[in-house]
Amino acid sequence: MSITSVPNVTIADVEAAAEVLAGVAMRTPLVENSALNERSGGRVLLKAETLQRTGSFKFRGAYNKITSLPAQLRTQGILAWSSGNHAQGVAEAARLLGAPATIVMPRDAPAIKIDNTRRLGAEVILYDRYNESREEIGARIAHERGLAIVKPYDDPLVIAGQGTVGLEIDEQCQRIGAENDILLVNCSGGGLAAGCATAIAARSPATEIYAVEPQYHDDMARSLAAGERQTNPPDAPPTLCDALMARAPGEITFPIARELLSGGLSVSDAEVKHAVRYAYEVLKLVVEPGGAASLAAVLSGRIECRGKTVCLILSGGNISPGLLSEILADP
Amino acid sequence: MSITSVPNVTIADVEAAAEVLAGVAMRTPLVENSALNERSGGRVLLKAETLQRTGSFKFRGAYNKITSLPAQLRTQGILAWSSGNHAQGVAEAARLLGAPATIVMPRDAPAIKIDNTRRLGAEVILYDRYNESREEIGARIAHERGLAIVKPYDDPLVIAGQGTVGLEIDEQCQRIGAENDILLVNCSGGGLAAGCATAIAARSPATEIYAVEPQYHDDMARSLAAGERQTNPPDAPPTLCDALMARAPGEITFPIARELLSGGLSVSDAEVKHAVRYAYEVLKLVVEPGGAASLAAVLSGRIECRGKTVCLILSGGNISPGLLSEILADP
Repeated sequence: MSITSVPNVTIADVEAAAEVLAGVAMRTPLVENSALNERSGGRVLLKAETLQRTGSFKFRGAYNKITSLPAQLRTQGILAWSSGNHAQGVAEAARLLGAPATIVMPRDAPAIKIDNTRRLGAEVILYDRYNESREEIGARIAHERGLAIVKPYDDPLVIAGQGTVGLEIDEQCQRIGAENDILLVNCSGGGLAAGCATAIAARSPATEIYAVEPQYHDDMARSLAAGERQTNPPDAPPTLCDALMARAPGEITFPIARELLSGGLSVSDAEVKHAVRYAYEVLKLVVEPGGAASLAAVLSGRIECRGKTVCLILSGGNISPGLLSEILADP
Repeated sequence: MSITSVPNVTIADVEAAAEVLAGVAMRTPLVENSALNERSGGRVLLKAETLQRTGSFKFRGAYNKITSLPAQLRTQGILAWSSGNHAQGVAEAARLLGAPATIVMPRDAPAIKIDNTRRLGAEVILYDRYNESREEIGARIAHERGLAIVKPYDDPLVIAGQGTVGLEIDEQCQRIGAENDILLVNCSGGGLAAGCATAIAARSPATEIYAVEPQYHDDMARSLAAGERQTNPPDAPPTLCDALMARAPGEITFPIARELLSGGLSVSDAEVKHAVRYAYEVLKLVVEPGGAASLAAVLSGRIECRGKTVCLILSGGNISPGLLSEILADP
């Protein structure tokens, strides 16, 4: 076995990303809801990245990465693969930076995510999530057309960009005098988790950080428990959380998560549905299933909040009208 | 004709209300959305009172009023009439202050508003909006049971409470270095408009303030134009904006509005529907029709935003799942 060295991400990288994103990314609010506090017995602070450009945190990492590319590469164009939120984040960042964007998306991604990506000016290439490899398709097209790849999570600049969410959480907690006991981060490939953990570990070392994943897609939780990267079985049942279906933690994100996270939690689709409905009914926020996983962990009691301050990230709000209506109609 | 003197509301009253509400009312975020800015050609800042306790600004005025009552009166109980948002705000304030609440609500108020009011512990008495007077029913029951009335808008303490929304808008604008050219306020009886106008006129006198009402329910706009209170015709067609159906501006709210407002705008139900859908799709916020009137004015171009900073209040988010699904299904 050979030992490969993996790039690390430091708090300085996250701070540099925050400077790049200042005045470009929205500074999303840290929302508090009295009914949720009463119900949980703690103080729950919700970082509403649903209110970020394109409705998810993904814009941050994409913009931080694309600005770093030499102008000539940007002009030639960029390519990304994504189930939808990274697609939109990349398309928006590329649009602002004048770079043509090509996005490889699964054919069964939510129509709202495909439509929005096209509306932002990107060329969308669809593939079959179950029989084709997006990495292979993406790499082939990028090579043919000379495009720079913007990976969804396994890139230090992407991780640093997502980490600015954690930086803002810390600053916002300080402003309201809240000491953050626990941070919950929705987790797919681990870009948001690794980035936020880097920020929070540096700024608020006493905070415990947990990744939250859908049931049967808990590769990060199992990887953290095992101490090495685990993969979800290819026959894992699909989840409503289309944004949280990575097969395994990233090569770069995992070592960071292993060092800084306290563990992983998983939530069922039924718990996620309830959280999406609760977000609509009580919080008055539109949250997609994958964006509501941490909220589901709080509402279902999978994490004990009593007497604690718990921050969580509502990481995405791109839910199709049809699915939202279906969830709201189901009592 | 006799000249009656009407109580005024001053900036000191609003500041006092802000002290009463500190740590009790949520400090709701001033949200900005890049897509909305691009579309409008201006800078649009959205005060998300949808994220307030009970999903609307109404809690502020109710709490400010009920805390002012002598303890004995509070213990005996309070009574309010409301189409739904004031009902919930009063029920929540009464619950926190240990006062039994009785609320008179129209039988055709959205079920979500009636249910939420009951869930907050209030006794709900239903009446027929089209054939009965809620003021008469309310006054009779209050007299019989010895209850203190918390009016929906025509009370200086209620107006001052709602005015804290304006105070926060001003503080939040200052923090981000935004000079507020225009403030749009959704208007029914005028409590929010009068309160916010009092705050903004004192703190940011160059800001123009407009009331926004549903078409055919534009009593405030017509009253401002005429210089005296006008009433909507009893046969005015109903509007989707169930929260904005006052028959006329209040006796106390109108003189304040006349002095401080630049005028009134009205929006159609179709424009409001579009705004509710836009709030879901782009802003990722749940907004009820009446809460979206000012947003509708911006989206429909009824107010010119180009090159300007325009603040508006998303005043309520209590929309039933059925109605939201219907609006989202309608392309």
